[in-house]
Amino acid sequence: KNRGRLLVSCPDQPGIVSAISRFLFSHNANIIESSQYSTNPEEGTFFIRIEFECPGLKEKAKEMEKQFAEIAENFSMEWKFTHVYNIKKAAIFVSKELHCLLELLWEWQSGDLMADIALVVSNHENAREVVEGLNIPFFYVPANKEIRQQAETEQLKLLKEYEIDFVVLARYMQILTPNFIKENPNKIINIHHSFLPAFVGARPYERAFDRGVKLIGATSHYVTNDLDEGPIIEQDISRVGHHDNVDSLKKIGRRIERSVLARAVKWHIEDRIIIHQNKTIVF
Amino acid sequence: KNRGRLLVSCPDQPGIVSAISRFLFSHNANIIESSQYSTNPEEGTFFIRIEFECPGLKEKAKEMEKQFAEIAENFSMEWKFTHVYNIKKAAIFVSKELHCLLELLWEWQSGDLMADIALVVSNHENAREVVEGLNIPFFYVPANKEIRQQAETEQLKLLKEYEIDFVVLARYMQILTPNFIKENPNKIINIHHSFLPAFVGARPYERAFDRGVKLIGATSHYVTNDLDEGPIIEQDISRVGHHDNVDSLKKIGRRIERSVLARAVKWHIEDRIIIHQNKTIVF
Amino acid sequence: KNRGRLLVSCPDQPGIVSAISRFLFSHNANIIESSQYSTNPEEGTFFIRIEFECPGLKEKAKEMEKQFAEIAENFSMEWKFTHVYNIKKAAIFVSKELHCLLELLWEWQSGDLMADIALVVSNHENAREVVEGLNIPFFYVPANKEIRQQAETEQLKLLKEYEIDFVVLARYMQILTPNFIKENPNKIINIHHSFLPAFVGARPYERAFDRGVKLIGATSHYVTNDLDEGPIIEQDISRVGHHDNVDSLKKIGRRIERSVLARAVKWHIEDRIIIHQNKTIVF
Amino acid sequence: KNRGRLLVSCPDQPGIVSAISRFLFSHNANIIESSQYSTNPEEGTFFIRIEFECPGLKEKAKEMEKQFAEIAENFSMEWKFTHVYNIKKAAIFVSKELHCLLELLWEWQSGDLMADIALVVSNHENAREVVEGLNIPFFYVPANKEIRQQAETEQLKLLKEYEIDFVVLARYMQILTPNFIKENPNKIINIHHSFLPAFVGARPYERAFDRGVKLIGATSHYVTNDLDEGPIIEQDISRVGHHDNVDSLKKIGRRIERSVLARAVKWHIEDRIIIHQNKTIVF
Repeated sequence: KNRGRLLVSCPDQPGIVSAISRFLFSHNANIIESSQYSTNPEEGTFFIRIEFECPGLKEKAKEMEKQFAEIAENFSMEWKFTHVYNIKKAAIFVSKELHCLLELLWEWQSGDLMADIALVVSNHENAREVVEGLNIPFFYVPANKEIRQQAETEQLKLLKEYEIDFVVLARYMQILTPNFIKENPNKIINIHHSFLPAFVGARPYERAFDRGVKLIGATSHYVTNDLDEGPIIEQDISRVGHHDNVDSLKKIGRRIERSVLARAVKWHIEDRIIIHQNKTIVF
Repeated sequence: KNRGRLLVSCPDQPGIVSAISRFLFSHNANIIESSQYSTNPEEGTFFIRIEFECPGLKEKAKEMEKQFAEIAENFSMEWKFTHVYNIKKAAIFVSKELHCLLELLWEWQSGDLMADIALVVSNHENAREVVEGLNIPFFYVPANKEIRQQAETEQLKLLKEYEIDFVVLARYMQILTPNFIKENPNKIINIHHSFLPAFVGARPYERAFDRGVKLIGATSHYVTNDLDEGPIIEQDISRVGHHDNVDSLKKIGRRIERSVLARAVKWHIEDRIIIHQNKTIVF
Repeated sequence: KNRGRLLVSCPDQPGIVSAISRFLFSHNANIIESSQYSTNPEEGTFFIRIEFECPGLKEKAKEMEKQFAEIAENFSMEWKFTHVYNIKKAAIFVSKELHCLLELLWEWQSGDLMADIALVVSNHENAREVVEGLNIPFFYVPANKEIRQQAETEQLKLLKEYEIDFVVLARYMQILTPNFIKENPNKIINIHHSFLPAFVGARPYERAFDRGVKLIGATSHYVTNDLDEGPIIEQDISRVGHHDNVDSLKKIGRRIERSVLARAVKWHIEDRIIIHQNKTIVF
Repeated sequence: KNRGRLLVSCPDQPGIVSAISRFLFSHNANIIESSQYSTNPEEGTFFIRIEFECPGLKEKAKEMEKQFAEIAENFSMEWKFTHVYNIKKAAIFVSKELHCLLELLWEWQSGDLMADIALVVSNHENAREVVEGLNIPFFYVPANKEIRQQAETEQLKLLKEYEIDFVVLARYMQILTPNFIKENPNKIINIHHSFLPAFVGARPYERAFDRGVKLIGATSHYVTNDLDEGPIIEQDISRVGHHDNVDSLKKIGRRIERSVLARAVKWHIEDRIIIHQNKTIVF
């Protein structure tokens, strides 16, 4: 397949689109879809995502990247070329509640999630049967506060061994250490079971019930060292009422969590997300 | 009109509905709509709202209330009869931003808000022209931190003089004192421009922008002494994106504020809301 | 379990609630949740759904029904007692696309669907593995225009043999004959992949694409002899845009179909639906 | 103000973005926002909307257009330059129901609708007071089936006299003749009170009630000769239930109509809409 993507962010100035598109044209690339956004026409930041078809992309990718580096330098760009034939490798971390994992596996089975689910890691055995039934390697790595260091060492080894591109925390209820996060910058996607910044931290459904909210939600975000404070990728909500108790909030919430996480993972896979100052641009 | 409403809450036990409905039947009242809810079948709290038609209601209302008091005592009920012919009198408090006021006036003009908007109070003159143009009394009462006491004295006098049943804070940007709130328990409806409990307090749109949320919202709630912590009546949200700046968040938000507040006020007027332990049951 | 439900519809008149609640009270039943609605206070139709706890319900159910029959006759009621301990038996019919079936199985596995999925019937073999993996009987019954009669004979035999209470058409792409429908009145729930009455009939996503709609939807309804014209139980939509092609509409639509059908089936199981003049009251 | 917009559609081929952006760069234009979409990388149609800042745009606009015409010819483009300082002139047509008109006037007053509402035309007198109160010319033009020709002659004269750029049918309940539509191609925006293609034609709320739908909606579209069949710009829905009668559907619907039409008009004003084969691309 000859489909590629280019993501660029840089200080805004005239001539950026012109330079990029001339470059692509000179390589016979046809732009399929492009989205651009500037925070501010004066002294703002410029962002673009371009998806293109380019005959013989695989062969000339290296050379193109080398040439583009020059343009990039002129405009002080941060940039990334990706090639659709390089399927991204994902690791999914999960605890006891499996609904988010199951949603991802389902999307993956039906061909809607174009990633390679390379392995599933859990601190419980609940998911083993379904995961191994799909011929995906499953690793039981015990984890809790006391043995966090040791668990992460093992997990990081697995990520390296399987050449993982990104990690999905599909209701993985353990906190990750700064070291683990530093090793995987902007590569860990979490689902939090509230519409952040409401109900940061533990037991959000219980707290939503106590507060008597009329909406509950879920938020998918990249993981940073500040708990539940990383760049938000996607959020959604559902309406609830006085007749709902904590259990029914959880049931309703599971449905939101599943779809919010699935969308966030899909956008990440399709290179639709640029992170900028703890926010996301989603093209 | 012979339409009445009965709201009851009491400790749950068998026989409550039977006693209430027998009572209504004995007065030839026909139940039009009833909604019931119990927090828990065992030792929970029972809530019911009944709307009924009763020939000659106006004449026998007093007698009915007297008779019902006995039943109420047996079941330790908190209860309230209301009669639809007694239109509730509302005072609307507003500052500079008029969109919520205009929405309520509009609904009122088109007959969708069955209340008597008896007066509008503001610490600015912006609303005078439109309010007086509709032959509604407008009172300019200067208000700020320094003269809060004095302002509230004047406001309370107005509420008394106009026999106000409830107050709507339609983006009234002043904080009320505990005394003012105590004088109007469960009678002050506020609109807060965020999906609470996110962004309690000032400048919620600015903070929503800084956090990079993908949804913004509004919340209507009864006012208590804890800022933005009163019982939530209604909430709603709209989707936003990276291209939105603070100004466009405010524009989008205004639309949500308008409709959330209008719904909350309508439910209050129709006696659909029971407050229980800092939450609302909305029938 | 001592939980029961009573559904009643009858011509409206004063005294109905009183009579019903007195009856329940006389059997020591405690009303947990009740919802009532009248189409019109004058000469309208009255509907009520009551959920109650009644000590020793199982033993005295027969006697209660017998006694209630007298009240019912006085008010010309259509009525139904159900007992929560009698789990309803469901048959799911499916063709090649499995997403709706999988959703129901999932909800069932996680305890959110309180029915007994007694068998799955399909005119394809695709679903066999997953269904039998859950120890649910799977029957392959070939079906198409030519052999409709023969297929339905076999299907009806299965419904009888397994004592099925209701049938879910979870994207079963065959048309049922009037005979089959007559044998199962108000007992067949279908999911149609459009927001009816838009796009009745075949290929709704293709036609939605051609029309350039900005919303697509799904509708769950009871099956009658008029194709896609039966009483609507639930509908929902999702926003789409110019960048969506038929394939992406189908993907987005699958998510709506799954949740709309799951809600409809859940309400049916919980006896929340009363059918009246080709519409549903959903309590 | 030096803000301009360029809209282009043409057969897709490599080099289009490059040619356009080089052209803009050569005029020192800085691209603020650009959105691009192709129906199909092979033999599809290419669409782009670019918003740019260009010093001295007003002075050199003519020259730029002349130069761009050459590029446009090379790529067989349909194209349009617009200049934000040229505020578009709108005529609003209305009948008796004023909610959509009032919404537009409101947005206009609060600065959210960057158009010049040059006149309001109605076949009733209801709107005169509010319109003239805002110093907008109001014209009463009687219209019905019998005098359609004569009414349209007068209307077309007004559109010409006031140099109107587009017409908004804000619940104008008269049908327009093919001649009127031909004179204003892609310039007439209508609001239809259903989620099209459901309930094409008259009395959609009554028909929605009869069908027992659980959602009602509204659709804004460009007017063509096929009734309610023109390119859809925007749609939205609200949830309704068995307790809603035709009147409450209309009330709920008015809120949807107002916001759907307001969004559509705003997008039209901002040149965000390209019409292609009876569909809209909305950038």
